[in-house]
Amino acid sequence: MLKIRPATDADHDAIWEIFHEVVAAGDTYPFDPQMSREDALAYWFRSDTQTYVAEQDRHVFGTYILRPNWSGPAGHVANAAFMVAANARGREIGRAMGEHCLAEARRLGFRAMQFNFVVSTNQSAVRLWQKLGMKIVGTLPGAFRHPEKGYVDVYVMFRSLLDD
Amino acid sequence: MLKIRPATDADHDAIWEIFHEVVAAGDTYPFDPQMSREDALAYWFRSDTQTYVAEQDRHVFGTYILRPNWSGPAGHVANAAFMVAANARGREIGRAMGEHCLAEARRLGFRAMQFNFVVSTNQSAVRLWQKLGMKIVGTLPGAFRHPEKGYVDVYVMFRSLLDD
Repeated sequence: MLKIRPATDADHDAIWEIFHEVVAAGDTYPFDPQMSREDALAYWFRSDTQTYVAEQDRHVFGTYILRPNWSGPAGHVANAAFMVAANARGREIGRAMGEHCLAEARRLGFRAMQFNFVVSTNQSAVRLWQKLGMKIVGTLPGAFRHPEKGYVDVYVMFRSLLDD
Repeated sequence: MLKIRPATDADHDAIWEIFHEVVAAGDTYPFDPQMSREDALAYWFRSDTQTYVAEQDRHVFGTYILRPNWSGPAGHVANAAFMVAANARGREIGRAMGEHCLAEARRLGFRAMQFNFVVSTNQSAVRLWQKLGMKIVGTLPGAFRHPEKGYVDVYVMFRSLLDD
């Protein structure tokens, strides 16, 4: 049984393991593949950020963050980012975290959700977010340098949180 | 004669005056209108950021920043933000800074420029960026709460820096 809960300091090792694995692969996130543990955890636990983990049998297989994408007159738009351990993919952990995230964003009063950077070649993610109601509202031509495919497009995805 | 040059510590007062004026108006930037001087200058002079001012007769009328929009495999995309003092608008200072910015971005080796947040009601800015070759590549529905017009759309604008 998968459980999604707020992360604590005790989750740092597990989160860093997943974060490093995902970012070092260099095929989905616009971060330096050599990003340090310190910088990674500072980013994932920023003061304006809610951090969650997905665990099963006391093992953390995924993590996500939820934060305002901007502030002031745009503070009603949320942003989120998701990571799943490579050995746990295909088990609907991303989907469970995505649904949890949209519910949390609504609970916190956000009116919309925006993903700023979904690499177009990450088709399983694009399809998953579309199933969760996120729409491609923008395409950034060649904004990501994929390690095998070269410069590929990036999608901006968005959905209202008011209409269902 | 307008001169655009890198900002120094001696420009902090002038930059803060412009920044505060622009952000307090609440009609163009996704920042807290009450943002403090300290936070504003920390943002405008972030370690990954090039900061410039536009001056005429030793008076600063505008300022802009240029930085990578992301890092790692997306570090080739630049981002920029521009502010002009209210009493200096209509004098082509924004246009001069925009042209300077695109040239600087090319000089620094960026392959593209992205503006993440252009409020659709800010028509003079949208038109100016279009004249400089920026295209609307995405629309964020209702992502900005305008002080008079309510929730309005926001554009993501983008251009290659390779093709001319």
